[in-house]
Amino acid sequence: MLKFSCTLFFFILLSRSALISSRHVYYQKQPCKELVLYLHDVIFNGTNIANATSARVTNPTKLGDYFFGMMVVFDDPMTRDTNLLSPPVARAQGLYFYDMKSTTNAWFAYSLVFNSSEYKGTLNIMGADMMDEPRRDLSVVGGTGDFFMARGIATFETIAAQGKYFCVKMDLKLYECP
Amino acid sequence: MLKFSCTLFFFILLSRSALISSRHVYYQKQPCKELVLYLHDVIFNGTNIANATSARVTNPTKLGDYFFGMMVVFDDPMTRDTNLLSPPVARAQGLYFYDMKSTTNAWFAYSLVFNSSEYKGTLNIMGADMMDEPRRDLSVVGGTGDFFMARGIATFETIAAQGKYFCVKMDLKLYECP
Amino acid sequence: MLKFSCTLFFFILLSRSALISSRHVYYQKQPCKELVLYLHDVIFNGTNIANATSARVTNPTKLGDYFFGMMVVFDDPMTRDTNLLSPPVARAQGLYFYDMKSTTNAWFAYSLVFNSSEYKGTLNIMGADMMDEPRRDLSVVGGTGDFFMARGIATFETIAAQGKYFCVKMDLKLYECP
Repeated sequence: MLKFSCTLFFFILLSRSALISSRHVYYQKQPCKELVLYLHDVIFNGTNIANATSARVTNPTKLGDYFFGMMVVFDDPMTRDTNLLSPPVARAQGLYFYDMKSTTNAWFAYSLVFNSSEYKGTLNIMGADMMDEPRRDLSVVGGTGDFFMARGIATFETIAAQGKYFCVKMDLKLYECP
Repeated sequence: MLKFSCTLFFFILLSRSALISSRHVYYQKQPCKELVLYLHDVIFNGTNIANATSARVTNPTKLGDYFFGMMVVFDDPMTRDTNLLSPPVARAQGLYFYDMKSTTNAWFAYSLVFNSSEYKGTLNIMGADMMDEPRRDLSVVGGTGDFFMARGIATFETIAAQGKYFCVKMDLKLYECP
Repeated sequence: MLKFSCTLFFFILLSRSALISSRHVYYQKQPCKELVLYLHDVIFNGTNIANATSARVTNPTKLGDYFFGMMVVFDDPMTRDTNLLSPPVARAQGLYFYDMKSTTNAWFAYSLVFNSSEYKGTLNIMGADMMDEPRRDLSVVGGTGDFFMARGIATFETIAAQGKYFCVKMDLKLYECP
Protein backbone atom coordinates (compact mmCIF):
# COMPACT_ATOMS: atom_id res chain seq x y z
CA MET A 1 0.00 0.00 0.00
CA LEU A 2 2.82 2.35 0.86
CA LYS A 3 4.36 1.42 -2.43
CA PHE A 4 1.11 2.18 -4.22
CA SER A 5 0.85 5.59 -2.66
CA CYS A 6 4.43 6.37 -3.45
CA THR A 7 3.83 5.42 -7.05
CA LEU A 8 0.82 7.63 -7.04
CA PHE A 9 2.83 10.43 -5.51
CA PHE A 10 5.51 10.03 -8.14
CA PHE A 11 2.90 10.03 -10.89
CA ILE A 12 1.40 13.23 -9.57
CA LEU A 13 4.72 15.01 -9.50
CA LEU A 14 5.41 13.81 -12.99
CA SER A 15 2.11 14.91 -14.38
CA ARG A 16 2.29 18.22 -12.59
CA SER A 17 5.68 18.93 -14.02
CA ALA A 18 4.33 18.03 -17.45
CA LEU A 19 1.51 20.48 -16.93
CA ILE A 20 3.80 23.24 -15.87
CA SER A 21 6.31 22.84 -18.61
CA SER A 22 4.26 22.18 -21.69
CA ARG A 23 1.49 24.76 -21.45
CA HIS A 24 -0.78 23.02 -23.90
CA VAL A 25 -3.77 24.73 -22.38
CA TYR A 26 -7.08 23.03 -22.99
CA TYR A 27 -9.71 25.75 -22.76
CA GLN A 28 -13.30 24.87 -22.21
CA LYS A 29 -15.66 25.57 -25.05
CA GLN A 30 -17.57 28.07 -22.93
CA PRO A 31 -15.88 31.37 -22.15
CA CYS A 32 -15.67 32.34 -18.47
CA LYS A 33 -17.20 35.71 -19.44
CA GLU A 34 -19.11 36.93 -22.48
CA LEU A 35 -20.27 40.42 -23.45
CA VAL A 36 -22.06 41.40 -26.65
CA LEU A 37 -21.73 45.07 -27.54
CA TYR A 38 -22.31 47.16 -30.64
CA LEU A 39 -19.81 49.71 -31.90
CA HIS A 40 -21.05 52.77 -33.76
CA ASP A 41 -18.63 54.73 -35.92
CA VAL A 42 -19.54 58.07 -37.50
CA ILE A 43 -16.69 59.45 -39.57
CA PHE A 44 -15.96 63.17 -39.44
CA ASN A 45 -16.74 64.85 -42.76
CA GLY A 46 -15.60 68.33 -41.84
CA THR A 47 -18.96 69.62 -40.63
CA ASN A 48 -20.55 66.94 -38.39
CA ILE A 49 -18.52 67.78 -35.26
CA ALA A 50 -21.44 67.10 -32.90
CA ASN A 51 -22.10 63.58 -34.24
CA ALA A 52 -18.73 62.44 -35.51
CA THR A 53 -16.90 59.83 -33.41
CA SER A 54 -13.87 59.25 -35.65
CA ALA A 55 -11.63 61.05 -38.11
CA ARG A 56 -9.22 59.97 -40.79
CA VAL A 57 -5.64 60.86 -39.99
CA THR A 58 -3.94 59.69 -43.18
CA ASN A 59 -5.09 59.77 -46.76
CA PRO A 60 -5.66 56.62 -48.79
CA THR A 61 -2.71 55.84 -51.06
CA LYS A 62 -3.01 55.11 -54.77
CA LEU A 63 -2.27 51.42 -54.19
CA GLY A 64 -5.54 49.94 -55.44
CA ASP A 65 -9.09 51.23 -55.07
CA TYR A 66 -9.86 50.17 -51.51
CA PHE A 67 -8.43 53.01 -49.39
CA PHE A 68 -5.11 51.21 -48.83
CA GLY A 69 -3.29 53.04 -46.04
CA MET A 70 -6.16 55.26 -44.92
CA MET A 71 -6.02 55.38 -41.12
CA VAL A 72 -8.86 56.42 -38.82
CA VAL A 73 -8.66 57.33 -35.12
CA PHE A 74 -11.89 56.71 -33.21
CA ASP A 75 -13.64 57.23 -29.91
CA ASP A 76 -16.81 55.25 -30.57
CA PRO A 77 -19.75 54.55 -28.26
CA MET A 78 -20.51 50.90 -27.49
CA THR A 79 -24.15 50.04 -26.83
CA ARG A 80 -26.06 46.93 -25.79
CA ASP A 81 -28.24 46.96 -28.90
CA THR A 82 -27.98 48.10 -32.52
CA ASN A 83 -29.48 51.52 -31.85
CA LEU A 84 -26.92 54.29 -32.23
CA LEU A 85 -28.86 56.39 -29.74
CA SER A 86 -28.96 53.81 -26.93
CA PRO A 87 -26.99 54.79 -23.82
CA PRO A 88 -23.34 53.81 -24.28
CA VAL A 89 -21.99 51.23 -21.82
CA ALA A 90 -18.39 51.68 -22.94
CA ARG A 91 -16.17 53.62 -25.37
CA ALA A 92 -13.96 52.02 -28.00
CA GLN A 93 -10.81 54.14 -28.43
CA GLY A 94 -8.09 53.38 -30.93
CA LEU A 95 -7.33 53.17 -34.61
CA TYR A 96 -8.07 51.19 -37.72
CA PHE A 97 -6.67 51.35 -41.22
CA TYR A 98 -7.37 49.76 -44.59
CA ASP A 99 -4.68 47.39 -45.78
CA MET A 100 -5.59 45.55 -48.98
CA LYS A 101 -5.39 46.64 -52.60
CA SER A 102 -7.89 44.09 -53.93
CA THR A 103 -10.73 44.35 -51.39
CA THR A 104 -11.92 46.30 -48.36
CA ASN A 105 -10.02 44.94 -45.40
CA ALA A 106 -9.00 46.59 -42.15
CA TRP A 107 -6.81 46.19 -39.10
CA PHE A 108 -7.78 47.35 -35.59
CA ALA A 109 -6.00 48.16 -32.34
CA TYR A 110 -8.07 49.71 -29.57
CA SER A 111 -9.25 49.70 -25.97
CA LEU A 112 -12.74 49.21 -24.66
CA VAL A 113 -13.07 51.67 -21.80
CA PHE A 114 -15.75 50.86 -19.21
CA ASN A 115 -16.69 53.41 -16.60
CA SER A 116 -20.16 52.52 -15.32
CA SER A 117 -21.66 51.14 -12.15
CA GLU A 118 -21.48 47.70 -13.75
CA TYR A 119 -17.85 47.68 -14.93
CA LYS A 120 -14.78 49.83 -14.47
CA GLY A 121 -11.70 48.96 -16.46
CA THR A 122 -10.46 48.30 -19.96
CA LEU A 123 -10.06 45.51 -22.49
CA ASN A 124 -7.26 45.81 -25.04
CA ILE A 125 -7.85 44.32 -28.47
CA MET A 126 -5.96 43.95 -31.73
CA GLY A 127 -6.25 42.03 -34.96
CA ALA A 128 -7.30 41.77 -38.58
CA ASP A 129 -10.83 42.72 -39.61
CA MET A 130 -11.28 40.73 -42.82
CA MET A 131 -14.44 42.44 -43.91
CA ASP A 132 -15.24 39.93 -46.67
CA GLU A 133 -15.88 37.32 -43.97
CA PRO A 134 -19.26 37.41 -42.21
CA ARG A 135 -17.52 36.90 -38.87
CA ARG A 136 -13.89 37.51 -37.98
CA ASP A 137 -11.94 37.00 -34.77
CA LEU A 138 -9.57 39.48 -33.17
CA SER A 139 -7.55 38.94 -29.98
CA VAL A 140 -8.34 40.37 -26.57
CA VAL A 141 -4.72 40.65 -25.42
CA GLY A 142 -5.13 42.17 -21.99
CA GLY A 143 -7.40 43.87 -19.52
CA THR A 144 -7.35 46.11 -16.48
CA GLY A 145 -9.65 46.95 -13.54
CA ASP A 146 -12.66 44.64 -13.54
CA PHE A 147 -11.05 42.87 -16.50
CA PHE A 148 -7.68 42.50 -14.78
CA MET A 149 -5.36 40.32 -16.90
CA ALA A 150 -8.19 39.09 -19.14
CA ARG A 151 -7.58 37.40 -22.48
CA GLY A 152 -9.98 36.15 -25.13
CA ILE A 153 -11.53 36.61 -28.53
CA ALA A 154 -13.55 39.51 -30.01
CA THR A 155 -15.74 38.37 -32.89
CA PHE A 156 -16.76 41.13 -35.32
CA GLU A 157 -19.91 41.08 -37.42
CA THR A 158 -20.96 44.05 -39.55
CA ILE A 159 -24.51 45.12 -38.77
CA ALA A 160 -24.71 48.26 -40.90
CA ALA A 161 -22.45 50.26 -43.22
CA GLN A 162 -23.89 53.25 -45.00
CA GLY A 163 -21.79 56.16 -46.16
CA LYS A 164 -20.12 57.74 -43.15
CA TYR A 165 -21.68 55.36 -40.59
CA PHE A 166 -21.05 51.76 -39.67
CA CYS A 167 -22.10 49.48 -36.85
CA VAL A 168 -20.19 46.35 -35.81
CA LYS A 169 -21.41 43.71 -33.38
CA MET A 170 -18.59 42.68 -31.05
CA ASP A 171 -19.02 39.39 -29.29
CA LEU A 172 -16.39 39.48 -26.54
CA LYS A 173 -15.54 36.05 -25.15
CA LEU A 174 -13.00 35.93 -22.37
CA TYR A 175 -11.21 32.63 -21.74
CA GLU A 176 -8.94 34.02 -19.04
CA CYS A 177 -10.91 35.94 -16.43
CA PRO A 178 -10.06 37.64 -13.15
CA MET B 1 -6.81 1.76 1.97
CA LEU B 2 -6.44 0.92 -1.65
CA LYS B 3 -9.94 2.20 -2.12
CA PHE B 4 -9.10 5.42 -0.32
CA SER B 5 -6.08 6.04 -2.48
CA CYS B 6 -8.03 5.31 -5.60
CA THR B 7 -10.65 7.80 -4.56
CA LEU B 8 -7.93 10.31 -3.90
CA PHE B 9 -6.43 9.57 -7.27
CA PHE B 10 -9.78 10.09 -8.95
CA PHE B 11 -10.31 13.35 -7.10
CA ILE B 12 -6.93 14.62 -8.20
CA LEU B 13 -7.65 13.85 -11.83
CA LEU B 14 -10.98 15.56 -11.54
CA SER B 15 -9.66 18.68 -9.90
CA ARG B 16 -6.77 18.87 -12.31
CA SER B 17 -9.09 18.70 -15.26
CA ALA B 18 -11.20 21.44 -13.67
CA LEU B 19 -8.11 23.58 -13.33
CA ILE B 20 -7.10 23.04 -16.90
CA SER B 21 -10.47 23.72 -18.43
CA SER B 22 -11.80 26.71 -16.55
CA ARG B 23 -8.88 29.11 -16.46
CA HIS B 24 -10.35 31.33 -13.82
CA VAL B 25 -6.91 32.39 -12.77
CA TYR B 26 -6.63 33.71 -9.25
CA TYR B 27 -3.66 36.04 -9.21
CA GLN B 28 -2.01 36.97 -6.00
CA LYS B 29 -2.30 40.59 -4.95
CA GLN B 30 1.45 41.06 -5.19
CA PRO B 31 3.03 41.09 -8.63
CA CYS B 32 5.86 38.60 -9.19
CA LYS B 33 7.95 41.52 -10.51
CA GLU B 34 7.66 45.29 -10.22
CA LEU B 35 9.64 48.07 -11.89
CA VAL B 36 9.05 51.81 -11.52
CA LEU B 37 10.44 53.88 -14.38
CA TYR B 38 9.95 57.43 -15.65
CA LEU B 39 9.37 58.23 -19.30
CA HIS B 40 10.58 61.54 -20.68
CA ASP B 41 9.12 62.82 -23.93
CA VAL B 42 10.48 65.89 -25.72
CA ILE B 43 8.54 66.66 -28.87
CA PHE B 44 10.42 67.77 -31.98
CA ASN B 45 9.64 71.40 -32.83
CA GLY B 46 11.69 71.58 -36.00
CA THR B 47 14.89 72.86 -34.40
CA ASN B 48 15.58 70.80 -31.25
CA ILE B 49 17.08 67.78 -33.04
CA ALA B 50 19.63 67.14 -30.30
CA ASN B 51 17.08 67.01 -27.48
CA ALA B 52 13.90 65.82 -29.19
CA THR B 53 12.84 62.23 -28.54
CA SER B 54 9.54 62.19 -30.45
CA ALA B 55 7.87 63.73 -33.49
CA ARG B 56 4.33 64.14 -34.66
CA VAL B 57 3.59 62.16 -37.79
CA THR B 58 -0.01 63.23 -38.42
CA ASN B 59 -1.69 66.58 -37.92
CA PRO B 60 -4.55 67.07 -35.48
CA THR B 61 -7.94 67.01 -37.22
CA LYS B 62 -10.59 69.67 -36.78
CA LEU B 63 -12.73 67.31 -34.70
CA GLY B 64 -12.78 69.23 -31.42
CA ASP B 65 -10.04 71.23 -29.77
CA TYR B 66 -7.97 68.46 -28.20
CA PHE B 67 -5.67 67.37 -31.03
CA PHE B 68 -7.99 64.53 -32.12
CA GLY B 69 -6.04 62.30 -34.49
CA MET B 70 -2.60 63.77 -33.89
CA MET B 71 -0.14 60.87 -33.78
CA VAL B 72 3.35 60.96 -32.31
CA VAL B 73 6.16 58.43 -32.80
CA PHE B 74 8.64 58.30 -29.93
CA ASP B 75 11.93 56.87 -28.78
CA ASP B 76 11.95 58.09 -25.20
CA PRO B 77 14.49 57.49 -22.45
CA MET B 78 13.26 55.71 -19.30
CA THR B 79 14.98 56.65 -16.06
CA ARG B 80 14.81 55.47 -12.44
CA ASP B 81 13.90 58.92 -11.15
CA THR B 82 12.11 62.02 -12.39
CA ASN B 83 15.28 63.70 -13.65
CA LEU B 84 15.38 63.89 -17.44
CA LEU B 85 19.17 63.84 -17.30
CA SER B 86 19.52 60.66 -15.23
CA PRO B 87 21.10 57.76 -17.10
CA PRO B 88 18.41 55.90 -19.06
CA VAL B 89 17.84 52.27 -18.05
CA ALA B 90 15.57 51.54 -21.03
CA ARG B 91 14.03 53.11 -24.13
CA ALA B 92 10.30 53.36 -24.80
CA GLN B 93 9.68 53.03 -28.54
CA GLY B 94 6.28 53.29 -30.14
CA LEU B 95 3.41 55.62 -30.83
CA TYR B 96 0.65 57.53 -29.15
CA PHE B 97 -2.22 59.56 -30.52
CA TYR B 98 -4.97 61.81 -29.17
CA ASP B 99 -8.46 60.39 -29.56
CA MET B 100 -11.14 62.50 -27.86
CA LYS B 101 -12.95 65.61 -29.02
CA SER B 102 -14.03 66.77 -25.55
CA THR B 103 -10.84 66.34 -23.52
CA THR B 104 -7.17 65.44 -23.80
CA ASN B 105 -6.99 61.67 -23.98
CA ALA B 106 -4.44 59.40 -25.62
CA TRP B 107 -3.78 55.82 -26.70
CA PHE B 108 -0.37 54.14 -26.52
CA ALA B 109 1.31 51.12 -28.12
CA TYR B 110 5.04 50.69 -27.51
CA SER B 111 7.92 48.53 -26.42
CA LEU B 112 10.22 49.04 -23.48
CA VAL B 113 13.66 48.06 -24.74
CA PHE B 114 16.18 47.06 -22.06
CA ASN B 115 19.82 46.61 -22.97
CA SER B 116 21.84 46.96 -19.78
CA SER B 117 23.86 44.71 -17.51
CA GLU B 118 20.72 44.39 -15.38
CA TYR B 119 18.13 43.49 -18.04
CA LYS B 120 18.16 42.53 -21.68
CA GLY B 121 14.84 42.16 -23.44
CA THR B 122 11.59 43.95 -24.12
CA LEU B 123 8.12 44.50 -22.66
CA ASN B 124 5.26 45.19 -25.06
CA ILE B 125 2.50 47.47 -23.85
CA MET B 126 -0.77 48.87 -25.19
CA GLY B 127 -3.82 50.65 -23.89
CA ALA B 128 -5.79 53.81 -23.22
CA ASP B 129 -4.14 56.72 -21.44
CA MET B 130 -7.13 58.55 -19.96
CA MET B 131 -5.27 61.66 -18.98
CA ASP B 132 -8.11 63.07 -16.87
CA GLU B 133 -7.58 60.23 -14.39
CA PRO B 134 -4.71 60.61 -11.90
CA ARG B 135 -3.70 56.99 -12.55
CA ARG B 136 -4.58 54.77 -15.51
CA ASP B 137 -3.78 51.16 -16.30
CA LEU B 138 -2.48 49.83 -19.60
CA SER B 139 -1.76 46.18 -20.44
CA VAL B 140 1.67 44.59 -20.62
CA VAL B 141 0.77 42.06 -23.30
CA GLY B 142 4.07 40.27 -23.82
CA GLY B 143 7.78 40.22 -23.19
CA THR B 144 11.02 38.85 -24.58
CA GLY B 145 14.53 38.08 -23.28
CA ASP B 146 14.70 38.59 -19.52
CA PHE B 147 10.96 39.31 -19.67
CA PHE B 148 10.17 36.18 -21.69
CA MET B 149 6.37 35.74 -21.99
CA ALA B 150 5.63 38.31 -19.28
CA ARG B 151 2.20 39.86 -18.79
CA GLY B 152 0.95 42.50 -16.41
CA ILE B 153 -0.19 46.06 -15.86
CA ALA B 154 1.54 49.40 -16.54
CA THR B 155 0.12 52.19 -14.40
CA PHE B 156 0.66 55.71 -15.77
CA GLU B 157 0.87 58.82 -13.65
CA THR B 158 1.73 62.22 -15.12
CA ILE B 159 4.62 63.82 -13.27
CA ALA B 160 5.16 66.86 -15.48
CA ALA B 161 3.70 68.36 -18.63
CA GLN B 162 5.02 71.70 -19.79
CA GLY B 163 4.90 72.76 -23.42
CA LYS B 164 6.95 70.35 -25.49
CA TYR B 165 7.98 68.15 -22.54
CA PHE B 166 6.17 65.62 -20.42
CA CYS B 167 7.19 63.01 -17.88
CA VAL B 168 5.09 59.96 -16.99
CA LYS B 169 5.73 57.59 -14.11
CA MET B 170 5.22 54.00 -15.23
CA ASP B 171 4.65 51.47 -12.50
CA LEU B 172 5.17 48.12 -14.24
CA LYS B 173 3.65 45.22 -12.34
CA LEU B 174 4.11 41.79 -13.87
CA TYR B 175 1.71 39.03 -12.82
CA GLU B 176 3.14 36.45 -15.22
CA CYS B 177 6.90 36.25 -14.94
CA PRO B 178 9.59 34.07 -16.48
CA MET C 1 -1.09 4.46 5.84
CA LEU C 2 -4.20 6.55 6.10
CA LYS C 3 -2.10 9.20 7.69
CA PHE C 4 0.40 9.04 4.89
CA SER C 5 -2.27 9.49 2.25
CA CYS C 6 -3.78 12.38 4.12
CA THR C 7 -0.43 14.05 4.32
CA LEU C 8 0.00 13.50 0.65
CA PHE C 9 -3.44 14.92 0.01
CA PHE C 10 -2.65 17.99 2.06
CA PHE C 11 0.63 18.44 0.23
CA ILE C 12 -1.14 18.30 -3.11
CA LEU C 13 -3.65 20.93 -2.09
CA LEU C 14 -0.89 23.13 -0.83
CA SER C 15 1.24 22.84 -3.92
CA ARG C 16 -1.73 23.33 -6.17
CA SER C 17 -2.68 26.52 -4.43
CA ALA C 18 0.89 27.72 -4.77
CA LEU C 19 0.72 26.99 -8.47
CA ILE C 20 -2.47 28.94 -8.90
CA SER C 21 -1.49 32.01 -6.98
CA SER C 22 2.06 32.72 -7.96
CA ARG C 23 2.03 32.28 -11.72
CA HIS C 24 5.75 31.98 -12.01
CA VAL C 25 5.34 29.94 -15.14
CA TYR C 26 8.26 27.71 -16.00
CA TYR C 27 8.13 27.25 -19.74
CA GLN C 28 9.98 24.43 -21.35
CA LYS C 29 12.83 25.35 -23.62
CA GLN C 30 11.02 23.84 -26.59
CA PRO C 31 7.98 25.66 -27.95
CA CYS C 32 4.77 23.63 -28.27
CA LYS C 33 4.58 24.84 -31.89
CA GLU C 34 7.10 26.34 -34.27
CA LEU C 35 6.64 27.84 -37.74
CA VAL C 36 9.33 29.43 -39.88
CA LEU C 37 8.00 31.80 -42.51
CA TYR C 38 9.49 34.51 -44.73
CA LEU C 39 7.89 37.93 -45.14
CA HIS C 40 8.33 39.78 -48.42
CA ASP C 41 7.71 43.51 -48.51
CA VAL C 42 7.66 45.51 -51.76
CA ILE C 43 7.05 49.20 -51.12
CA PHE C 44 4.75 51.10 -53.47
CA ASN C 45 6.70 53.67 -55.50
CA GLY C 46 3.75 55.15 -57.35
CA THR C 47 3.94 52.91 -60.40
CA ASN C 48 4.42 49.29 -59.22
CA ILE C 49 0.79 48.64 -58.32
CA ALA C 50 0.89 45.03 -59.50
CA ASN C 51 3.89 44.08 -57.37
CA ALA C 52 3.69 46.44 -54.41
CA THR C 53 2.56 44.95 -51.09
CA SER C 54 2.94 48.01 -48.85
CA ALA C 55 2.71 51.78 -48.96
CA ARG C 56 3.95 54.60 -46.79
CA VAL C 57 1.15 56.50 -45.12
CA THR C 58 3.17 59.19 -43.34
CA ASN C 59 6.27 61.07 -44.43
CA PRO C 60 9.55 60.80 -42.54
CA THR C 61 10.08 63.75 -40.21
CA LYS C 62 13.24 65.85 -40.13
CA LEU C 63 14.27 64.32 -36.80
CA GLY C 64 17.52 62.68 -37.87
CA ASP C 65 18.39 60.91 -41.11
CA TYR C 66 16.74 57.53 -40.53
CA PHE C 67 13.14 58.09 -41.63
CA PHE C 68 11.96 58.85 -38.07
CA GLY C 69 8.16 58.75 -38.09
CA MET C 70 7.69 57.23 -41.54
CA MET C 71 4.84 54.73 -41.26
CA VAL C 72 4.10 51.93 -43.71
CA VAL C 73 0.92 49.85 -44.00
CA PHE C 74 1.47 46.40 -45.46
CA ASP C 75 -0.28 43.30 -46.73
CA ASP C 76 2.74 41.09 -47.33
CA PRO C 77 2.88 37.48 -48.52
CA MET C 78 4.50 34.95 -46.17
CA THR C 79 6.27 32.01 -47.82
CA ARG C 80 7.99 28.87 -46.61
CA ASP C 81 11.29 29.78 -48.25
CA THR C 82 13.19 32.91 -49.21
CA ASN C 83 11.79 33.03 -52.76
CA LEU C 84 9.40 35.95 -53.24
CA LEU C 85 7.58 33.96 -55.92
CA SER C 86 6.88 30.87 -53.79
CA PRO C 87 3.20 30.27 -53.04
CA PRO C 88 2.19 32.31 -49.97
CA VAL C 89 1.03 30.29 -46.95
CA ALA C 90 -0.20 33.36 -45.05
CA ARG C 91 -0.50 37.14 -45.29
CA ALA C 92 1.07 39.59 -42.84
CA GLN C 93 -1.23 42.61 -42.46
CA GLY C 94 -0.40 45.59 -40.32
CA LEU C 95 1.93 48.52 -39.93
CA TYR C 96 5.50 49.41 -39.14
CA PHE C 97 7.21 52.71 -38.62
CA TYR C 98 10.75 53.97 -38.11
CA ASP C 99 11.44 55.38 -34.67
CA MET C 100 15.08 56.30 -34.09
CA LYS C 101 17.03 59.39 -35.03
CA SER C 102 20.48 57.78 -34.81
CA THR C 103 19.95 54.48 -36.65
CA THR C 104 17.43 52.51 -38.68
CA ASN C 105 15.04 50.96 -36.20
CA ALA C 106 11.39 50.00 -36.57
CA TRP C 107 8.30 48.97 -34.62
CA PHE C 108 5.72 46.46 -35.86
CA ALA C 109 2.10 45.59 -35.09
CA TYR C 110 0.40 43.10 -37.41
CA SER C 111 -1.60 39.94 -37.88
CA LEU C 112 -0.55 36.78 -39.67
CA VAL C 113 -3.65 35.64 -41.54
CA PHE C 114 -3.75 31.94 -42.46
CA ASN C 115 -6.42 30.66 -44.81
CA SER C 116 -5.16 27.37 -46.26
CA SER C 117 -6.01 23.70 -45.95
CA GLU C 118 -3.26 23.49 -43.34
CA TYR C 119 -4.22 26.39 -41.07
CA LYS C 120 -7.13 28.78 -40.70
CA GLY C 121 -6.81 31.57 -38.19
CA THR C 122 -4.59 34.45 -37.16
CA LEU C 123 -1.62 35.27 -34.97
CA ASN C 124 -1.33 38.80 -33.58
CA ILE C 125 2.15 40.20 -33.08
CA MET C 126 3.72 43.41 -31.83
CA GLY C 127 7.12 44.67 -30.79
CA ALA C 128 10.35 46.46 -31.54
CA ASP C 129 12.38 45.54 -34.61
CA MET C 130 15.87 46.65 -33.62
CA MET C 131 17.38 46.30 -37.04
CA ASP C 132 20.97 46.69 -35.85
CA GLU C 133 20.66 43.35 -34.06
CA PRO C 134 21.04 40.20 -36.19
CA ARG C 135 18.03 38.67 -34.45
CA ARG C 136 15.29 40.42 -32.49
CA ASP C 137 12.29 39.09 -30.61
CA LEU C 138 8.73 40.41 -30.85
CA SER C 139 5.71 39.14 -28.89
CA VAL C 140 2.98 36.92 -30.25
CA VAL C 141 0.22 38.34 -28.05
CA GLY C 142 -2.79 36.36 -29.22
CA GLY C 143 -4.27 34.04 -31.78
CA THR C 144 -7.57 32.91 -33.26
CA GLY C 145 -8.93 29.89 -35.12
CA ASP C 146 -6.29 27.15 -35.32
CA PHE C 147 -4.11 29.40 -33.16
CA PHE C 148 -6.83 30.03 -30.57
CA MET C 149 -5.39 31.93 -27.56
CA ALA C 150 -1.79 31.31 -28.63
CA ARG C 151 1.14 33.26 -27.21
CA GLY C 152 4.82 33.17 -27.99
CA ILE C 153 7.81 34.84 -29.60
CA ALA C 154 8.44 35.92 -33.21
CA THR C 155 12.15 36.17 -33.97
CA PHE C 156 13.03 38.43 -36.90
CA GLU C 157 16.12 38.02 -39.07
CA THR C 158 16.71 40.17 -42.14
CA ILE C 159 17.39 38.02 -45.19
CA ALA C 160 17.46 40.71 -47.86
CA ALA C 161 17.03 44.48 -48.09
CA GLN C 162 17.56 46.12 -51.45
CA GLY C 163 15.91 49.39 -52.38
CA LYS C 164 12.15 48.95 -52.30
CA TYR C 165 12.27 45.25 -51.30
CA PHE C 166 13.07 43.47 -48.08
CA CYS C 167 12.67 39.92 -46.81
CA VAL C 168 12.53 38.99 -43.12
CA LYS C 169 12.69 35.47 -41.72
CA MET C 170 10.12 35.08 -38.95
CA ASP C 171 10.71 32.19 -36.59
CA LEU C 172 7.39 31.86 -34.77
CA LYS C 173 7.67 29.91 -31.52
CA LEU C 174 4.48 29.41 -29.57
CA TYR C 175 4.74 28.61 -25.85
CA GLU C 176 1.01 28.64 -25.25
CA CYS C 177 -0.83 26.49 -27.79
CA PRO C 178 -4.43 25.44 -28.31
